[in-house]
Amino acid sequence: MSTITGGAGPQSALYLDDLKIGDRFCSAEHALDEQQIMAFARQFDPQPFHLSDAAAKSTLFAGLAASGWHTAAITMRLLVTSGMPLQDGVIGSGGEISWPQPTRASDILHVESEVLEITPSRSRPDRGMVKLRSETRNQRGELLQLFVSKLVVSRKPA
Amino acid sequence: MSTITGGAGPQSALYLDDLKIGDRFCSAEHALDEQQIMAFARQFDPQPFHLSDAAAKSTLFAGLAASGWHTAAITMRLLVTSGMPLQDGVIGSGGEISWPQPTRASDILHVESEVLEITPSRSRPDRGMVKLRSETRNQRGELLQLFVSKLVVSRKPA
Repeated sequence: MSTITGGAGPQSALYLDDLKIGDRFCSAEHALDEQQIMAFARQFDPQPFHLSDAAAKSTLFAGLAASGWHTAAITMRLLVTSGMPLQDGVIGSGGEISWPQPTRASDILHVESEVLEITPSRSRPDRGMVKLRSETRNQRGELLQLFVSKLVVSRKPA
Repeated sequence: MSTITGGAGPQSALYLDDLKIGDRFCSAEHALDEQQIMAFARQFDPQPFHLSDAAAKSTLFAGLAASGWHTAAITMRLLVTSGMPLQDGVIGSGGEISWPQPTRASDILHVESEVLEITPSRSRPDRGMVKLRSETRNQRGELLQLFVSKLVVSRKPA
């Protein structure tokens, strides 16, 4: 098992063959703010609790919260740019996502990932599937999103 | 069972008590294009197959494809604005997502949802959970995303 921390550079671009169960990856950080939360919400999730702190006060969220899809999108950016250095990119076919607590404007996000399963394809010798557990946490270590994804990962050319 | 089609207006804002298993909802449509795909990718998923049709040719996608998170975000917009008229908003705690085939620049998306389960909360008499199956399809009816979500839904005030 090894841990690779964000921004390790191109030399760390990995194939399926380079991964081991239990390998861990930690991304760089992304600082959120009210403007980002509201801009995303206006475009993709225009609900009061994502658009205005005042309007959010009387809702389930009791204050401005980021759309879960915004947390997911930032998580993807962190994985792609620093959190999961895969040779042919981070390509997911799906997974299970949950948001245990709201993401707030003052949160600084990072992503901690762990390889859970590695399954070479039987029909396609050039690739395999990796089950990856990605935890998106803030600066206090609080879990904002859990995503267990199935990734398509290239094998090293023979 | 009934089907509510997009843009039914505020009179259709629903509480948990108004929903029945098997109720179906159909959203309005959203037309995608290359500019939207690339703008989302630059911000949240900067990988070649989401940024440039030419660069995407030699990848698994064999041409420009939207980020799965872009499909998810558009799905949310369609649910919020026309696809799932809930009284206190569309609030998800998570779910299972998959992308059976890539979303393309020429796709026109809509969302078809169905209520699978309704569970009043034991500890919080003002709310309950709804399991909702949401299929995001294009103009040819092809399934681009399946999301089975758990929503928090308000109960009608006594």
